[in-house]
Amino acid sequence: MKDNLVKENDFVLFYLSPRKKWLIQVSPGKQVHTHAGYIEVENVIGKEYGTSVMTNTNQEIYLLYPKLNDYIFKSKRATQILYPKDMAIIASWTDLSHGKKVIETGTGSGSLSCFIANLIRPDGHLYTYDIREESHETAKKNIEKAGLSEFITLKIKDAKLGLEERDMDVAILDLGDPWTLIKTMKDCLRPGGILASVSPTINQVEKVVIELQNEGFLEIETLEILMRDMEVREGKTRPAMRMIGHTTYLTFARKSLDTVKG
Amino acid sequence: MKDNLVKENDFVLFYLSPRKKWLIQVSPGKQVHTHAGYIEVENVIGKEYGTSVMTNTNQEIYLLYPKLNDYIFKSKRATQILYPKDMAIIASWTDLSHGKKVIETGTGSGSLSCFIANLIRPDGHLYTYDIREESHETAKKNIEKAGLSEFITLKIKDAKLGLEERDMDVAILDLGDPWTLIKTMKDCLRPGGILASVSPTINQVEKVVIELQNEGFLEIETLEILMRDMEVREGKTRPAMRMIGHTTYLTFARKSLDTVKG
Amino acid sequence: MKDNLVKENDFVLFYLSPRKKWLIQVSPGKQVHTHAGYIEVENVIGKEYGTSVMTNTNQEIYLLYPKLNDYIFKSKRATQILYPKDMAIIASWTDLSHGKKVIETGTGSGSLSCFIANLIRPDGHLYTYDIREESHETAKKNIEKAGLSEFITLKIKDAKLGLEERDMDVAILDLGDPWTLIKTMKDCLRPGGILASVSPTINQVEKVVIELQNEGFLEIETLEILMRDMEVREGKTRPAMRMIGHTTYLTFARKSLDTVKG
Amino acid sequence: MKDNLVKENDFVLFYLSPRKKWLIQVSPGKQVHTHAGYIEVENVIGKEYGTSVMTNTNQEIYLLYPKLNDYIFKSKRATQILYPKDMAIIASWTDLSHGKKVIETGTGSGSLSCFIANLIRPDGHLYTYDIREESHETAKKNIEKAGLSEFITLKIKDAKLGLEERDMDVAILDLGDPWTLIKTMKDCLRPGGILASVSPTINQVEKVVIELQNEGFLEIETLEILMRDMEVREGKTRPAMRMIGHTTYLTFARKSLDTVKG
Repeated sequence: MKDNLVKENDFVLFYLSPRKKWLIQVSPGKQVHTHAGYIEVENVIGKEYGTSVMTNTNQEIYLLYPKLNDYIFKSKRATQILYPKDMAIIASWTDLSHGKKVIETGTGSGSLSCFIANLIRPDGHLYTYDIREESHETAKKNIEKAGLSEFITLKIKDAKLGLEERDMDVAILDLGDPWTLIKTMKDCLRPGGILASVSPTINQVEKVVIELQNEGFLEIETLEILMRDMEVREGKTRPAMRMIGHTTYLTFARKSLDTVKG
Repeated sequence: MKDNLVKENDFVLFYLSPRKKWLIQVSPGKQVHTHAGYIEVENVIGKEYGTSVMTNTNQEIYLLYPKLNDYIFKSKRATQILYPKDMAIIASWTDLSHGKKVIETGTGSGSLSCFIANLIRPDGHLYTYDIREESHETAKKNIEKAGLSEFITLKIKDAKLGLEERDMDVAILDLGDPWTLIKTMKDCLRPGGILASVSPTINQVEKVVIELQNEGFLEIETLEILMRDMEVREGKTRPAMRMIGHTTYLTFARKSLDTVKG
Repeated sequence: MKDNLVKENDFVLFYLSPRKKWLIQVSPGKQVHTHAGYIEVENVIGKEYGTSVMTNTNQEIYLLYPKLNDYIFKSKRATQILYPKDMAIIASWTDLSHGKKVIETGTGSGSLSCFIANLIRPDGHLYTYDIREESHETAKKNIEKAGLSEFITLKIKDAKLGLEERDMDVAILDLGDPWTLIKTMKDCLRPGGILASVSPTINQVEKVVIELQNEGFLEIETLEILMRDMEVREGKTRPAMRMIGHTTYLTFARKSLDTVKG
Repeated sequence: MKDNLVKENDFVLFYLSPRKKWLIQVSPGKQVHTHAGYIEVENVIGKEYGTSVMTNTNQEIYLLYPKLNDYIFKSKRATQILYPKDMAIIASWTDLSHGKKVIETGTGSGSLSCFIANLIRPDGHLYTYDIREESHETAKKNIEKAGLSEFITLKIKDAKLGLEERDMDVAILDLGDPWTLIKTMKDCLRPGGILASVSPTINQVEKVVIELQNEGFLEIETLEILMRDMEVREGKTRPAMRMIGHTTYLTFARKSLDTVKG
């Protein structure tokens, strides 16, 4: 599709090894410094993606186009509870694809917003709310960096005051007290629309599920995803010793039109 | 977007409970029989999605529009090793979204093909190969049912004889001896393009990783995904007793242009 | 030590395959019937353990002395939540070995009682309580079958009325509302003594931990144990597809003498 | 049983918090230094176990009698692959209890040796082999510290040259190439005796299982144990974020007398 050559202002993933890689926007005068020497960034303009350049100490650095996860990981914060594995399941369980209309609260750093927007492009749209001004600013920058601004409407508002979007295909709850917003999100969803809620503690999950039942949601389901890395070496293959034991629980449900149940 | 009413020939998910649901194409004369009575299918035409109808024994059945996973699960076979959780991770790790060009071998029942096509719509394309005639026929039907035919080119061919596609963004290997096709898939990928390989045994994984290293791939990573259901009831919440302990390992890597490494 | 020959009245594990084995007490006139034919049980008297006998259809059945787990599994009931993996961790975390004095409530089927008694033999003792008459009878039979009666005192009593044992090394809580008995068990334990509590739901665990904190226990710890079987075949090794996802949570703590904390 | 008072030369666990505890032998002139101040060790002589003493900065430190695991953890080394969870399963699956005769190779740091000896006391015995002189010395010290010398015979020898013990109830393999010693261990076991083998990689496991099959072992089983800590706080309970993803695989089997199988 494109000509596959690095251009000025491109974001490029400079790849030295699986754990040593840097996402850098190409512009004159910049340098990438590594423990394996440095590179003058402007020298990579015109190189083909997938090829390598040499540092001043003759180490190979590969030039890769970034994946969406490369953008998202760079904006990761200490309090982050949503990992790529969780985002992947949310996308799949809520059936995200081009054209879908999605509402999200809260925005946080915008990682999940970017993830969603990338999947509903080019004709879908995400409306995302956060009550915190600073969150709004951070998210705005991250979304711009990922080139996804046109698919996302960012709003600063307390969702508890009510939200105006209607007929959304998907509603995402990613904040501390999601059970307080089940009714609000239900109003935003179209019938049969899918709600996803993210909570790290089991107590939050209980409250969310009870509220979903009260509001007549169907197909209520809570799950958690464990990811285990394998260390694959010929004749010495084993699971990795370290592992993330828990990030968050994921709860899903579908809106029905009849809420009066016995 | 649509008027949200059930029409003739629609596929509708008839939902009685989390474990009792049926994907049915609406046509006159059909009946849905359940242990809770039956429904005349033609009576649901014109009803709104999200509402319910009553069986002859007065049980509520909800009418939901199907999610892609509802189509995929219906085509699941006994030998299926790829679960929705695995497909979700493949999609996310290979950065699937609209416009991507993907090559897959083998097609199998077409489940993963549908999953991929749904994400790369409307301007992406999937080329999928299988050597088995019967697989081709099954996949063709499943793809048509899911309404994804225009985004998928199905081919019957032994991939070991070489594949003509070039500059693919993503290559998927889902067959018994994926290590024999690493070189072939590399030729199909654009530089920096992403390969995903699916194998249930660790011995297969070892062979794949060795071959990926020989071919100069970067960011080689193998992982497995465990999904655990929670039984959420007020004051009695616990993980489910039964769990799938293993489906498959997933291996990912990116193509580089330099394969000569020390 | 022993002469390793099967004698009348011995319990013998008749072993056909990993999933086909029977624990049978040897006595004249009995037969073991399998899908691979039958054996006259009295014919095994005088055979050496570890050898095999032939069924009438010429299939090999091995004669093995039972392990404690073979007795325990035979007394397993549908509601069983404690698996051998959990018992193993309880034993190790409470430091069970010969000479220890242990109190347990409730007795249930006596599985855990047998497991404990086997480890504290020959000079330790277990006092185990249950309020239910029928549980008492079942446990009594299982304990006799395992040959452990002399190390266990079985009592029928509502533990909430108080227990007379003192200076116990270990206290085990295995019943539905363990948080109501923390104070009682503390009175039974010697200072520094170890308490273990077994609960399948996370809500029970929360109540237990809060009560342990109130009573000044130290080293409070809750964990769960997941066991995964491997299917090992040359060149085709993989984790088993099916797995038990959850049995119970295990909570441990040590008694201190000072309960007044700020 | 004992008078429950701290005496000179006792090993005492000084407990400040779940992660701050020290195993110290009581002797005059010693001090325990913590970030919460220090204690003159001789001042604890005559105190009751379970009570606390104050540091010079008025922080409470509890005096607990050590559990076996407290000794074992203190001798843990960087290369340690056997965790308490694994030892617990080995003990339970091999039916360890008083009176059992056990053979182990290799000894390593003696952690597992101590664990085993503690369970087979007072009338069982462990014979443990290691080829490395330095391992022998380390193990000897750790075993003495745990007070278990009389139940363990330590030998320096290359097990591949053959071992003289016979009629062992249990044989443990904990070294890099366990498949080379299956035949040797079989000779040491009594018929029906149980073998346990410990290996971190799946390739080792495959070789062990093949050799066990060749030698006619029964009930061959490989498993792994995952332990997950829970963070229990009222209304905020969740699994811990960090977790050990893999330590080792455990393989078990029972010796039969007939090795000639088709």
